[in-house]
Amino acid sequence: MTYPFLKGHGTENDFVLLPDHDGSVHGDLDEARVRALCHRRAGIGGDGVLRVIRTAALPADLAALGEGSEWFMDYRNADGSISEMCGNGVRVFALHLIDEGLVDPDAPIPVGSRDGVKVVTRAADGGLTVDMGSPRLLGHTEVTVDGRTWPARHVDMGNPHAVAFVDSLDSIGGAGTLLEPPGHDAAVYPDGVNVELVVRRGPRHVAMRVHERGSGETRSCGTGACAVMVAAAEADGAGSDGAGSAAGAAYRVDLPGGTLMIELSAEGRVLMTGPAVIVARGTTDL
Amino acid sequence: MTYPFLKGHGTENDFVLLPDHDGSVHGDLDEARVRALCHRRAGIGGDGVLRVIRTAALPADLAALGEGSEWFMDYRNADGSISEMCGNGVRVFALHLIDEGLVDPDAPIPVGSRDGVKVVTRAADGGLTVDMGSPRLLGHTEVTVDGRTWPARHVDMGNPHAVAFVDSLDSIGGAGTLLEPPGHDAAVYPDGVNVELVVRRGPRHVAMRVHERGSGETRSCGTGACAVMVAAAEADGAGSDGAGSAAGAAYRVDLPGGTLMIELSAEGRVLMTGPAVIVARGTTDL
Repeated sequence: MTYPFLKGHGTENDFVLLPDHDGSVHGDLDEARVRALCHRRAGIGGDGVLRVIRTAALPADLAALGEGSEWFMDYRNADGSISEMCGNGVRVFALHLIDEGLVDPDAPIPVGSRDGVKVVTRAADGGLTVDMGSPRLLGHTEVTVDGRTWPARHVDMGNPHAVAFVDSLDSIGGAGTLLEPPGHDAAVYPDGVNVELVVRRGPRHVAMRVHERGSGETRSCGTGACAVMVAAAEADGAGSDGAGSAAGAAYRVDLPGGTLMIELSAEGRVLMTGPAVIVARGTTDL
Repeated sequence: MTYPFLKGHGTENDFVLLPDHDGSVHGDLDEARVRALCHRRAGIGGDGVLRVIRTAALPADLAALGEGSEWFMDYRNADGSISEMCGNGVRVFALHLIDEGLVDPDAPIPVGSRDGVKVVTRAADGGLTVDMGSPRLLGHTEVTVDGRTWPARHVDMGNPHAVAFVDSLDSIGGAGTLLEPPGHDAAVYPDGVNVELVVRRGPRHVAMRVHERGSGETRSCGTGACAVMVAAAEADGAGSDGAGSAAGAAYRVDLPGGTLMIELSAEGRVLMTGPAVIVARGTTDL
């Protein structure tokens, strides 16, 4: 079977897109195909697959999650497992909808996902802005990397994060190699945790590395960058009585794969702005 | 500029192919474009680029190297640098020529390269066989991996190899992590060396890992597999007075990315047979 694909990325978090508007190409997309597509040497290569399907073409349970959105981002991790959402992926997904003339580019673009409908808008700088929802600032905790223990802030962005401010992002003498999952408090994070190591670069400007649970260190993590912004805004005094009071604060967050701008809206929602690129399109029989 | 590409691999050594039959698409293909194409997250991803060009479309100095071959494999490493030849790449290249009807699939297929013309033929098992030329068995030497030193055989396949038989391919307690370039005798290998670590699996059946100079550990190395076969044939007594006397010996060589069959012809030439796959085709503007 030969079918169409595209490849794209947002801050070097990369995806294979599978247009399947009415669900007739891939039916119940199987794990083996996702793994084959994402294999970096025997396949096309990617951190995950974004199936582009109409919400109306989905089974009722999934369609309910995308209610109000014509298009649904059926996201799969590179190992074939299902993931609810991906902040870098949804920008690439929205760009594809715009490129193909499937949505009005000047209006907010709702995108269905297993985490509900996300709204994407075009930003003034040419990037795309995603409403990532409301963060929750939870307790204080610790993480341990390469034998060094750092205080960390527990931020929930729908998924769990531990944000630690460190002396340096260097592997040697700083943040560590991140080759192993950082140590964390299993009572606080029973399902594991995404760990962000952060340094200051300037006023409302930070840089980070991230270790994603299940994936290891990655070039970019959208929810991780949001969690970092929330913790930084609190540390800066903007949000000492909760994230909401940091409303209007906008931070530049540098990641290994690029830069994201993160802002807290007046309603206390996290707005993430960043680039999206489609680099190739064609057909495959993987 | 939007231009066509294909992606393929041989034993998980993967390539971006650029059809450019008359040289009008890429002109003097520049390093930055090769790097962008091969980037595994921001690009398509590959170990190298294979530009598909008619020998007649090349400048005179390159055309001379491809004399007698209609098609020339203009090979570039992922970092943009030039490499003479790639044994896994030339199978993928020949498959592409067959797929596109550019050559007679039932006749030997000459492919021009910076290392001269290589001849590819279809094998009975559906794979492709490449005449890799005549090996040279040189001296005995040593390599050091993770603090352990192993005796090694110096085999030249146009490029330098050190083949060491080890207890086990395991990272722990065996062949080592191969995260660092193995130690070697700089007097023997002034330009560095590709190091193969080998174990026996059965009669005329070996398995190997390889550290390629400049690339680190890879999933497959065609010339490395050939060097391993030559050293194994000698160790088995087939070639104690030189590789030629092992004529007719055929070895199965298992690599992390797949299996190659390596044979010494009656003329003392190394014939490598292995798979080739094209997984995707399309257009890009990288």
